[in-house]
Amino acid sequence: MKSSIGEKIKLSVFGESHGPAIGCLLEGLPSGVKIDMDALLAQMARRAPGRDKTATTRKEADIPEIISGVVDGVTTGAPLAIIIKNSDTKSHNYDNLRDNPRPSHADFAAAVKFGGANDIRGGGHFSGRLTAGIVAAGAICRQILKEEGITVGGHILTIGNVAETSFDPVNVTAAQLEALSSKLFALNNPAAEELMRAEIESARLEADSVGGCVELAAVGLPVGLGNPMFFGVENVVSNILYGIPAVKGVSFGAGFGYASMRGSRANDQMYYDDEGNVRAYTNNCGGITGGITTGMPLIVNVAIKPTPSIGQPQKTVNLKTGENSTLVIEGRHDPCIVPRALPVLEAALAIALLDLLAQGDRV
Amino acid sequence: MKSSIGEKIKLSVFGESHGPAIGCLLEGLPSGVKIDMDALLAQMARRAPGRDKTATTRKEADIPEIISGVVDGVTTGAPLAIIIKNSDTKSHNYDNLRDNPRPSHADFAAAVKFGGANDIRGGGHFSGRLTAGIVAAGAICRQILKEEGITVGGHILTIGNVAETSFDPVNVTAAQLEALSSKLFALNNPAAEELMRAEIESARLEADSVGGCVELAAVGLPVGLGNPMFFGVENVVSNILYGIPAVKGVSFGAGFGYASMRGSRANDQMYYDDEGNVRAYTNNCGGITGGITTGMPLIVNVAIKPTPSIGQPQKTVNLKTGENSTLVIEGRHDPCIVPRALPVLEAALAIALLDLLAQGDRV
Amino acid sequence: MKSSIGEKIKLSVFGESHGPAIGCLLEGLPSGVKIDMDALLAQMARRAPGRDKTATTRKEADIPEIISGVVDGVTTGAPLAIIIKNSDTKSHNYDNLRDNPRPSHADFAAAVKFGGANDIRGGGHFSGRLTAGIVAAGAICRQILKEEGITVGGHILTIGNVAETSFDPVNVTAAQLEALSSKLFALNNPAAEELMRAEIESARLEADSVGGCVELAAVGLPVGLGNPMFFGVENVVSNILYGIPAVKGVSFGAGFGYASMRGSRANDQMYYDDEGNVRAYTNNCGGITGGITTGMPLIVNVAIKPTPSIGQPQKTVNLKTGENSTLVIEGRHDPCIVPRALPVLEAALAIALLDLLAQGDRV
Amino acid sequence: MKSSIGEKIKLSVFGESHGPAIGCLLEGLPSGVKIDMDALLAQMARRAPGRDKTATTRKEADIPEIISGVVDGVTTGAPLAIIIKNSDTKSHNYDNLRDNPRPSHADFAAAVKFGGANDIRGGGHFSGRLTAGIVAAGAICRQILKEEGITVGGHILTIGNVAETSFDPVNVTAAQLEALSSKLFALNNPAAEELMRAEIESARLEADSVGGCVELAAVGLPVGLGNPMFFGVENVVSNILYGIPAVKGVSFGAGFGYASMRGSRANDQMYYDDEGNVRAYTNNCGGITGGITTGMPLIVNVAIKPTPSIGQPQKTVNLKTGENSTLVIEGRHDPCIVPRALPVLEAALAIALLDLLAQGDRV
Repeated sequence: MKSSIGEKIKLSVFGESHGPAIGCLLEGLPSGVKIDMDALLAQMARRAPGRDKTATTRKEADIPEIISGVVDGVTTGAPLAIIIKNSDTKSHNYDNLRDNPRPSHADFAAAVKFGGANDIRGGGHFSGRLTAGIVAAGAICRQILKEEGITVGGHILTIGNVAETSFDPVNVTAAQLEALSSKLFALNNPAAEELMRAEIESARLEADSVGGCVELAAVGLPVGLGNPMFFGVENVVSNILYGIPAVKGVSFGAGFGYASMRGSRANDQMYYDDEGNVRAYTNNCGGITGGITTGMPLIVNVAIKPTPSIGQPQKTVNLKTGENSTLVIEGRHDPCIVPRALPVLEAALAIALLDLLAQGDRV
Repeated sequence: MKSSIGEKIKLSVFGESHGPAIGCLLEGLPSGVKIDMDALLAQMARRAPGRDKTATTRKEADIPEIISGVVDGVTTGAPLAIIIKNSDTKSHNYDNLRDNPRPSHADFAAAVKFGGANDIRGGGHFSGRLTAGIVAAGAICRQILKEEGITVGGHILTIGNVAETSFDPVNVTAAQLEALSSKLFALNNPAAEELMRAEIESARLEADSVGGCVELAAVGLPVGLGNPMFFGVENVVSNILYGIPAVKGVSFGAGFGYASMRGSRANDQMYYDDEGNVRAYTNNCGGITGGITTGMPLIVNVAIKPTPSIGQPQKTVNLKTGENSTLVIEGRHDPCIVPRALPVLEAALAIALLDLLAQGDRV
Repeated sequence: MKSSIGEKIKLSVFGESHGPAIGCLLEGLPSGVKIDMDALLAQMARRAPGRDKTATTRKEADIPEIISGVVDGVTTGAPLAIIIKNSDTKSHNYDNLRDNPRPSHADFAAAVKFGGANDIRGGGHFSGRLTAGIVAAGAICRQILKEEGITVGGHILTIGNVAETSFDPVNVTAAQLEALSSKLFALNNPAAEELMRAEIESARLEADSVGGCVELAAVGLPVGLGNPMFFGVENVVSNILYGIPAVKGVSFGAGFGYASMRGSRANDQMYYDDEGNVRAYTNNCGGITGGITTGMPLIVNVAIKPTPSIGQPQKTVNLKTGENSTLVIEGRHDPCIVPRALPVLEAALAIALLDLLAQGDRV
Repeated sequence: MKSSIGEKIKLSVFGESHGPAIGCLLEGLPSGVKIDMDALLAQMARRAPGRDKTATTRKEADIPEIISGVVDGVTTGAPLAIIIKNSDTKSHNYDNLRDNPRPSHADFAAAVKFGGANDIRGGGHFSGRLTAGIVAAGAICRQILKEEGITVGGHILTIGNVAETSFDPVNVTAAQLEALSSKLFALNNPAAEELMRAEIESARLEADSVGGCVELAAVGLPVGLGNPMFFGVENVVSNILYGIPAVKGVSFGAGFGYASMRGSRANDQMYYDDEGNVRAYTNNCGGITGGITTGMPLIVNVAIKPTPSIGQPQKTVNLKTGENSTLVIEGRHDPCIVPRALPVLEAALAIALLDLLAQGDRV
């Protein structure tokens, strides 16, 4: 099993939920970058459990230790390794879960693939906890992107059936993205937030969970990033985003909405703005044509499935007895993973964009 | 620019729409496989222009020549190279297009990226014509997959606002997929087909185009294919599918529909069937959990934007004069690319799945 | 089987000796480069058979056709594909060779690996003929390197027991390298050439073959190319050079001579030259420390084994009868492959260096 | 900067000599393997400093902590991360070294490449200390190879001008390799060992250092491992070996000796042995033809330069003043790194071979 990605900026993720530590390795960073640890910890806090009442009550200090690649707070150019120790790991008896795979978790597929040797404690290597390292790595990439004038952000677009568009894909600004990225529950309309929180609370009270959708954006990208065919922005971004647990859909710009459009409406017609820059009246293509950035904001939608761990009894199989069984999952779970997934997805997008940027344009 | 993809089965695509030839290179194939040229040509015919009145009237013989990797019709294990000569290339004057980039085409982004040196004749390397090689490569991969009991197929799910579900994601069979994959306009309901054709004809008459969506499936996959995080089935499949021009959304199983579900409904509860196989009552996860196949059918949805080449006047910029301009695109265009894109997407899916299969399970 | 290499500049080689054509694919080239076809053909001529009496008498026109990535002689930035048709393929009966693998050829190993399906006609994919495409690709890379002030070249260092050092590794110049690279039998001392030719002729008359060694160099490289550990100049260069048939040793600078040195003599002590550049008094490290270029000339030595095809009877096994056998190889063979291998090795070095250069320094 | 390698088995190395820890990440291991920690620690001890009087007196406990990928001593299939804390890091003032790069070290090239931000304490990421993680990773790979009947080993071939062949490349056995690999100073002839130790002591007394050469071998490899061209055994093995500091030459079988041979002597003629296996009378090809294993022992020679850190005054440049200078290097250094490099090279060979094995043969 490989858990690494990237061409020029390479991310490798390691660890298991209840092992000694999780972490990640980030290769290809430039030397001489002073790491903004406050910004890094602020992003970690958005993802950390127990910060918002919509999330699991598991508490983790989530203090990242940079054990290589940084001296006196400045990158050396060598691979940057981050370790995050696991602390709040309750010593369950996991025999029940090993025997009775949880529906819509990886338990069954992993048991077959790894011959039962995979670590199932807290989900092992499949746990959402491993995304903590991605957030830390992404925070560093965001900082380098910012020095190049590129800002990444995102917001909660839907929770269950409640939807709220927090920005305009044609005119979204860096300031708007930064404001959103400082929030634990990231959207702009307090009324919509209240409704979304109510959806989550309703699911929680029924020992259930609920899915949602987020919208990511990046502004300040140069024209010409990415390639036709298999190294396009869409390929690279979807490739990394599908690495985040619970992601089941990734689309760009109008995405699936494009399918019911006519070309005359879908096409992003162009003009010169006052500064002589080429701009488009609409942004259905989400800032990408032919795999290459156009200079308009990059817009990505991501669908996130409901947390599969729910408190209700569920039908499954008993791999030990070979008979059908019923499972009730104990423990602390997020009734909705969307708010905590958002900073992870933003981080992953930042890593992908820095990789594309680092691949350069000429030669 | 790189136009290659894959770990163990590697596909590289080359050529330009109006150059001497297009083609592809397929590395990593097993030796000793007898190529079924009839099956290969049948897939080529589904994608070829001029076969169905919904498509462009450009005619291309599209005869693939295998120039390496095959002796006496059998694979040698060496890289397999396919060449398809370009013939029906009309000698336009392309100065107008070079100066006035077409909206929602890659023209503007590519002009910036390649400093104007990119081939714009017929779209150059960005042309959908390059997918002909992918169909040929995919046909070979489909054949090898079939020997392993795996069948890939798909159907048109929507054209504009007309939708038709042609199979059940829980119970879809190899026979159903093969029947669909033998059609030029692949779906099961003649009434829906009539409505979809009417949508396309309506767009054509208005010098417009229309988008759509396809649903792909694979049955017979073993449990345990793919990995958590970045080498999962979703990552690998979305990575290659986004290499096909006009794709703007890729989702798995319930996809974006997952976002509004509760976990209690979304979770695929499991049972043993009569043969002792683990099955699920539903297939919202599209046959993948934690990036790994579950043994249920793999289900992928793909959104395809309307052909950006339309006959109506459109606003754009004149890169030569630096002023706003109006463009009318001449030439032969598909009012809807969905029917011809489907065999390409099926081919790409087959290549990705063979790559995952070839990566093996143990060690 | 994969036959491709490179990170940013990617080379893929395809074809079989007696198939319709051989060729290669070169991805990642910059756009806008005017190809110097004369320079390309001049390099092809150095490798082509039948040009020098030390070589096989097989005649091949070896005319490369660029079928994609170039319009009007200028690179478009799209993958560049080169095809070279095979013409002088004599229709032998190959059953004898299939049954009786040639000693020190890949015949036996390949028969096992590919289950007998590999193309054995003329060596198939293992043939030295496939290096023609590498020479063409390398010529294009050499041209781009030259625009960056970097010159690649080499000379015959030994044939059998005759040795001749044609340049000084500390002070070798671009002009010296270019003069050597214009020769069919590349070295500087006519007396040594005469002795080397005599070695080859002696081997030929005895139906035997003889090995040798070449020295490659590159000047004008910037300080800082390459990386510590696995992406260093030595790794990248040796990786591609071992892709050339008959190469059995690759070393840098003093190479194996380093093993018997003391550090006090081996170390390359440094000074500022008159222009303020950092230079070294010696160049035992061959222009690389810690995997990174120092600005001194890059020096690579390559050992080339004697052509294994010889006219003398040899002991082998009969894979059909399962008994020991004796083989006499018919046909046209090079009594010494070193002169023709040299331009291939120079080309491969150029491709590797352009790849390193294209990977850039910052981010 | 990337410090990772491998296709199916991927090794990434991180850390800096005087940072908090060094370590490595090993992806792609099979699940269910019980790690033999005693064997792992025995290999670590061979490389560790301070164990033999020929080595530096720096003491490091070198206790590897496996922080992911192993539960209860058994691999889970998830990425395996190893951390080794740094302890004996003396707090020097490094300003002198930063200003005056050490001859034949990476100091100057790295200073230019990383703009002075690279960690120079103890060599930073360039330090031989980083190879400790490679030994640990290699020990795990050796164990898995052994389960497949493959044994890796090696011996000191030369130190300075003293040479000793410890085994026969045609008939070397697993038992011989295992016996050698249990030694700190690995060769078979006590008289030769005495002479080699005298060479080292002589260098040490003169504040000098001395180079050497090692011979590596692997037995039990199946026929058919590796590929023609760029994924051959020679490419993969040389690629990883050049990642080990101080390696300046890598050759296979007769290597550079091949260059002066005639084909009639160089060719490895074949026969059936009593068990019906195809064997060769000689093994000049080092067990590889056309990049593919033949079933004969794999033989690799590696040249190692003298430790560049010596106690004698050396000429260098002062990067701060821009003037020539003289440097005397303080501190603890190995007068000969060859004995400690050997277990690292064996480990690297094991990792490369497991990668090739894991890539499989069919499909």
